[in-house]
Amino acid sequence: MNAEFVNPFIISLVNVLKTMAQIELQIGKPQKKADSKARGDVSGLIGMVGSNIAGSMSITFEEGLALQVMEGMLGERPDSLDDEVNDMVGEITNMVAGGAKKELAKKGYDVGMATPVVVSGKEHTINHKVSGHKMILPFKAEGGKAYIEICFDK
Amino acid sequence: MNAEFVNPFIISLVNVLKTMAQIELQIGKPQKKADSKARGDVSGLIGMVGSNIAGSMSITFEEGLALQVMEGMLGERPDSLDDEVNDMVGEITNMVAGGAKKELAKKGYDVGMATPVVVSGKEHTINHKVSGHKMILPFKAEGGKAYIEICFDK
Repeated sequence: MNAEFVNPFIISLVNVLKTMAQIELQIGKPQKKADSKARGDVSGLIGMVGSNIAGSMSITFEEGLALQVMEGMLGERPDSLDDEVNDMVGEITNMVAGGAKKELAKKGYDVGMATPVVVSGKEHTINHKVSGHKMILPFKAEGGKAYIEICFDK
Repeated sequence: MNAEFVNPFIISLVNVLKTMAQIELQIGKPQKKADSKARGDVSGLIGMVGSNIAGSMSITFEEGLALQVMEGMLGERPDSLDDEVNDMVGEITNMVAGGAKKELAKKGYDVGMATPVVVSGKEHTINHKVSGHKMILPFKAEGGKAYIEICFDK
C-alpha cells in the first residue's frame, strides 16, 4: 500500500476534526508492523469494496479524545461514552471514508463504501484480516490518542 | 429487510459451525428492536456493498462459545481469547459472508464483500449505523451465545 492510497484518509480525518470540532491533530508516523495494536475505547469501522479490491478502515479513539471531540462539536462534554458519542463516531467514520473516497476516485480508484459500524468497550482491539499490508496511523490531541487503520487485499 | 435476505446468513453460520466444529446451534428469535444489544467478547465484522445497497454483518461470540468452536475445530481448548481465536473468528466471518453471498446471488442480489475485521475486548458492543432496519439473530450452544447482526441501507 502506498502513500497515494493512505494520505486521503489522513487528510480527511484531520480536516473533519478541525472543521467539526476545532481540534488540531498531531500526525504520528505510519506503521506497517503486524504486531502494532490500536487499543481504544470506541471505534468506527467501515468496509470498502472496489471492482478488484476489498478492504476496511477503522478509526479508534481513546475515551478522552472522543469526549474532547464531543465538546468541540456540541460545546458540552458528556460524562462518559454514551449513545451520542457512539453516533458521533459513526458519523465521523462516514465523513472520513466519504472524503477519502472522493480523493481516491480522482486518482482512478473507484471504491464503494459499506455502512459504518461502531464498537464500544474499554480497551478493545481491532484486527483487520487481510492478505496485504496493514497500515496503522497514530494521531494525538490534547484529550488523547486516535488510530486509523487501513487494510486492503490486493 | 425480509427473511429472503436474512435466512442465507443464518443458514450459513449454522452450516459453518456444524461442518467445522461439530456444533449444533440453537437458533433464537430474530429481533428488530433498536435497543437490542449484542454483548460479547470477540466479534467478526464485514462490510457489504452492492450496486444500490450497502450494509454490514457482524458475528459476536461470548468467550465460552468461541473457545468451544476452537476445541471443535482443533481438538484442543485454548485458555483464553488468543491470536488463534482471533484468526478463527475472522475465517468464520469470511465463510459465513461468502456462503450468504452465494445464496443472495441466486436470488438476484449481487453483493460484494469487504474484508473481515475482528474486535476483541471483554463485553464490547457493536452498533451498526444504518438508515434501515437492524436485525439481531441470537444463537446458543453449550459453550455460550452468539449473535449475528445484519443491517442495510436501502
